[in-house]
Amino acid sequence: MLTRAQEKLVRGLGQRGRREDERLFLAEGVRVVEELLDAGIVLRFALASSALEDTERGRALARRLAAAAPVHQVSGGELNRMAGTRGPQGVLVVAEIPPASLADLQPGATPLALVLDGVQDPGNIGTLTRTAAAFGCGLVACLPGTVDPWNPKSVRASAGALFRLPVVTVPVDELWAWLGAHGFRVLGADAAGLPVRDRPPGRRAALVVGNEGGGLTTPVRDRCDALVAVPMRGRTESLNVAVAAGILLYELSRGAD
Amino acid sequence: MLTRAQEKLVRGLGQRGRREDERLFLAEGVRVVEELLDAGIVLRFALASSALEDTERGRALARRLAAAAPVHQVSGGELNRMAGTRGPQGVLVVAEIPPASLADLQPGATPLALVLDGVQDPGNIGTLTRTAAAFGCGLVACLPGTVDPWNPKSVRASAGALFRLPVVTVPVDELWAWLGAHGFRVLGADAAGLPVRDRPPGRRAALVVGNEGGGLTTPVRDRCDALVAVPMRGRTESLNVAVAAGILLYELSRGAD
Repeated sequence: MLTRAQEKLVRGLGQRGRREDERLFLAEGVRVVEELLDAGIVLRFALASSALEDTERGRALARRLAAAAPVHQVSGGELNRMAGTRGPQGVLVVAEIPPASLADLQPGATPLALVLDGVQDPGNIGTLTRTAAAFGCGLVACLPGTVDPWNPKSVRASAGALFRLPVVTVPVDELWAWLGAHGFRVLGADAAGLPVRDRPPGRRAALVVGNEGGGLTTPVRDRCDALVAVPMRGRTESLNVAVAAGILLYELSRGAD
Repeated sequence: MLTRAQEKLVRGLGQRGRREDERLFLAEGVRVVEELLDAGIVLRFALASSALEDTERGRALARRLAAAAPVHQVSGGELNRMAGTRGPQGVLVVAEIPPASLADLQPGATPLALVLDGVQDPGNIGTLTRTAAAFGCGLVACLPGTVDPWNPKSVRASAGALFRLPVVTVPVDELWAWLGAHGFRVLGADAAGLPVRDRPPGRRAALVVGNEGGGLTTPVRDRCDALVAVPMRGRTESLNVAVAAGILLYELSRGAD
């Protein structure tokens, strides 16, 4: 039986402030919750509706959930009302945001990091994190002005990458100090930058991407070691920020062989 | 004054069937409507709320709209209720889907085309079209099972690319006949494919991307000349379909120099 306090908590976790206060987030849907369990994220409790029992995969997940945390049965209508996005597929969980801080983080063999400077669309943040994981980034850092990566839409779009990669929200000075101490060259994504294949060499690179409409903020742009662009041969078209970051990380990951 | 019939039309255009019957679509937001006018798309009528007068850019757009089509003033609340997505920024228009058919299309100097095989997310379709435009594709072709590219969310995510590029919905046989007649090599995006830099050579390439979860359908995969992948060096991570297509089109556009 779900208590009133738990119901209030679930509704509250749609808001960034409440997520930050509680250090908790919402995840929903069979695949996302499977990935969350695979990654060893700590669950507080789960809500399940009868829809979860409709498939063999859903039933297997229900058994795993029962072993991991208290599971409350709710109606499909209730679940839809409490979910952060459409289509929770019969399951919604409240889980702990994995602790991540720069002070504890060693880049190790990791040659790449991704930095977000004012990215506003939660779906883009999730897709950017997924892309960072695919190209072996050891860190995703969100600068002030960037949307919360633990937004339900971002969690869904990340396809589990948020559970596997350290994701920190950090002031500019602190991040630059850490990047400098670990020998990262900082490359800002900017249409006026060098073609990415002509970038200055370096063992480690941090790629900084900016806001969907406005690009990098001036203070951040000014602190980059170089600006890099996806060459598009004189066209006036632009790319979605996650697509541009994907191409740049693809090139940077090749250069880092 | 908006008539009842016009109001019904606007609401109906949220549905694919009605868009296809009427050959009309909805576009909203200052930037999207500017791009639509720039591209010479034919407007039936526009709805504007007082919010459009809040900025100089909005007022300039209001003047352009007044010269292009009947403009009906509505309240901000009414506009929000009729809009297909959040945040219409004071403007919503009903416009004609630009006619595009393979029979009339000559690839000319265009070395690339993008084919969508069962892509389901409207945002992805829009982002894919935007990416195709950025890399000089001469065509976006949607196979059966793909979401309607004229969905309001797709229109918004395309950042105007839908207005500038021929976008057709077409059966497999007809598309393959056209691609064959114009010397396109057909490359399917598949994680098990060749690294894209090792693809077979060819003057023209059509890249086919599949469903977000399931990839290419079997009949389409079987008809591709080769399968290509983004090399990710043994990782189990996957990429969002628009990011993967972006990297593949980037590589194909370089090969086509």
